[in-house]
Amino acid sequence: MDAVDNYSFESTDTAGKTITCKAAVAWGPGEPLVIQDVRVAPTQKMEVRLKILFTSICHTDLSAWKGENEAQRAYPRILGHEAAGIVESVGEGVEDITKGDHVIPIFQGECGNCTCCKNQKTNLCQKFGVNPLKSVMLNDGKTRFSTKDGSPIFHFLNTSTFSEYTVIDSACVVKIDSDAPLEKMSLLSCGVSTGVGAAWNVADVQPGSSVAIFGLGAVGLAVAEGARVRGASKIIGVDINPSKFAKGKAVGITEFINPKDLEVPVHEKIGALTLGGVDYSFECAGNLEVLREAFLSTHMGWGLTVLLGIHPSPMLLPLHPMELFNGRQIIGSIFGGFKGKTQLPKFAQQCMCGTLNLDEFISHELPFDKINEAFQLLVDGKSLRCLLQL
Amino acid sequence: MDAVDNYSFESTDTAGKTITCKAAVAWGPGEPLVIQDVRVAPTQKMEVRLKILFTSICHTDLSAWKGENEAQRAYPRILGHEAAGIVESVGEGVEDITKGDHVIPIFQGECGNCTCCKNQKTNLCQKFGVNPLKSVMLNDGKTRFSTKDGSPIFHFLNTSTFSEYTVIDSACVVKIDSDAPLEKMSLLSCGVSTGVGAAWNVADVQPGSSVAIFGLGAVGLAVAEGARVRGASKIIGVDINPSKFAKGKAVGITEFINPKDLEVPVHEKIGALTLGGVDYSFECAGNLEVLREAFLSTHMGWGLTVLLGIHPSPMLLPLHPMELFNGRQIIGSIFGGFKGKTQLPKFAQQCMCGTLNLDEFISHELPFDKINEAFQLLVDGKSLRCLLQL
Repeated sequence: MDAVDNYSFESTDTAGKTITCKAAVAWGPGEPLVIQDVRVAPTQKMEVRLKILFTSICHTDLSAWKGENEAQRAYPRILGHEAAGIVESVGEGVEDITKGDHVIPIFQGECGNCTCCKNQKTNLCQKFGVNPLKSVMLNDGKTRFSTKDGSPIFHFLNTSTFSEYTVIDSACVVKIDSDAPLEKMSLLSCGVSTGVGAAWNVADVQPGSSVAIFGLGAVGLAVAEGARVRGASKIIGVDINPSKFAKGKAVGITEFINPKDLEVPVHEKIGALTLGGVDYSFECAGNLEVLREAFLSTHMGWGLTVLLGIHPSPMLLPLHPMELFNGRQIIGSIFGGFKGKTQLPKFAQQCMCGTLNLDEFISHELPFDKINEAFQLLVDGKSLRCLLQL
Repeated sequence: MDAVDNYSFESTDTAGKTITCKAAVAWGPGEPLVIQDVRVAPTQKMEVRLKILFTSICHTDLSAWKGENEAQRAYPRILGHEAAGIVESVGEGVEDITKGDHVIPIFQGECGNCTCCKNQKTNLCQKFGVNPLKSVMLNDGKTRFSTKDGSPIFHFLNTSTFSEYTVIDSACVVKIDSDAPLEKMSLLSCGVSTGVGAAWNVADVQPGSSVAIFGLGAVGLAVAEGARVRGASKIIGVDINPSKFAKGKAVGITEFINPKDLEVPVHEKIGALTLGGVDYSFECAGNLEVLREAFLSTHMGWGLTVLLGIHPSPMLLPLHPMELFNGRQIIGSIFGGFKGKTQLPKFAQQCMCGTLNLDEFISHELPFDKINEAFQLLVDGKSLRCLLQL
């Protein structure tokens, strides 16, 4: 059958049947995605099938698309993990989500039952955590996607949102208020939650504090927005792309540093601007030299560096053990420390009521079949988020 | 003049005069210390001269004695930083300490006025922090020690306690209850505070939690004692020297691991013993391989590794940035996170009233002139602390 219309769920009962729909399939490293018909199998136990209405592209998709890490390559594959949609059907045992619910997928799941899910100190999940090597469903080790002739198409990051329909474990699907604007809620599926949450949940930015953000993509700007809402008095943005600076002002960045304009290391400049260093720094660039600058940019004694950028190459941390004795700390942050199913519904409400300003993050909009253009915008550093409408 | 008798301060006024007394002087890397007469100049502004009654040797003294780090070599030098004594005289401006006070020196000072001292999150001090390169007094950049012919003898770690008399900045001298047994209070000057404080102030060990301690010297055993007092339910001690295990039991260690007895990495053994890893691990060995095992021994999501061991070689942290995304944290700890002048008097009272059991830590006692024997006991791993009486 063809793609089901967005709002026709009530009249069309597709549950339990295979759906044929359009998806953007990655066939090899760096090759343009191919928009083609794919078959999406029905849900199994504790799975949810949803119609994706909006999706966008994040750097993790870029990295997987380029096949930067050989061990993570699995083709053909449906990438994408930042999205919003409506539930088409649910599998046996799913109780918190029903057909017609407005939902966002989360690549960092929350099973609710593992040792980590039961511990308030972490948002990791031992069953549905981020695993770039995972390319099949947990239930049966198989894919729910296939080509017309039945050969498998692999999953990505628990989500695979570059498809009109996708099947996701219910631990990775969050129900949100049906009044929430889905095109903006899509941002909460990755970038905005990752950045704002890093400021709120991981660093716990305090009023009057100082912050430095290295890398002003969507995640870095979301950190700034989170720090602004928390009342940070100084928010320094660092990026080598000066075009990022205009956006930064709108989300509360108070000072800009372009490392290319400096004759000293960035941390020295930040030390001078802040009487010894910032309270918090955020590494959103995924670069080891930047990581070191971010670490040294915090104040001795209590500075905290939060890592958000992905470092695919297996290099050591560019820090000496003795440097930790200066009282600077470093910590990794996944999905902003949010326990997705528990915390995201409230976070979505905060976004709806204007606590956070999400207007700046969607820089471009394109129809789904222009997805390769959207990739190029991100590669060229021209877009923050290009929203694709399915 | 000769050494003033321990308790003759009231009848002898030596203030403002140079004192000649015995000290153990290091003349070169690894050379036996020489017990000889040295001249100890009077105090200058904000300095305190004290008579050392008890001192002991810690691994930091060993490292400096061996001259392991070339940049830190300064000979002749009076080492020693773990001690207890009585104030002989104070310099201009010293208000919190007077002649006759019972005191312990602290290598990690507390000036009370710098940005770090004013911040509750850290015990670092920007004026009198640990600086192994420092070998003179801050006031005038000169030494208070000299040979009989007037040539300088250098200071060490703000303290230089291997001398009957020493001059220390008042920021590095803590007054304690005059009823406290000074021979035990000496332990609070470094090892016991460093270990117990790491468990209390830095890790904040919680009741019912699990702990792994790598390296069962005095500091490691003090961590165990601190964790025991906090109510940790599982305290795993790791050491390649089986003779350390007997002592461990007395301070609350519940399980022992000798890595030499294992066919798997230590972290796998600990993971099996604790359903996934301990809540806290403490690296007290100063070894990079051990550091990595300590890091991997904690539970994903919330495990915290506290570094106490000194790593003199300039190697990188043996961790991959992505490993931080598993939610394990690593943090350095200096002097157990204690703000010395503010917190140690109360800590001393806790030790006196039996909250902590310090009986196990003094394994040997010798007169001061046997200091080279005491060094050898520590080198051979035979002593925890050998108390030297002056």
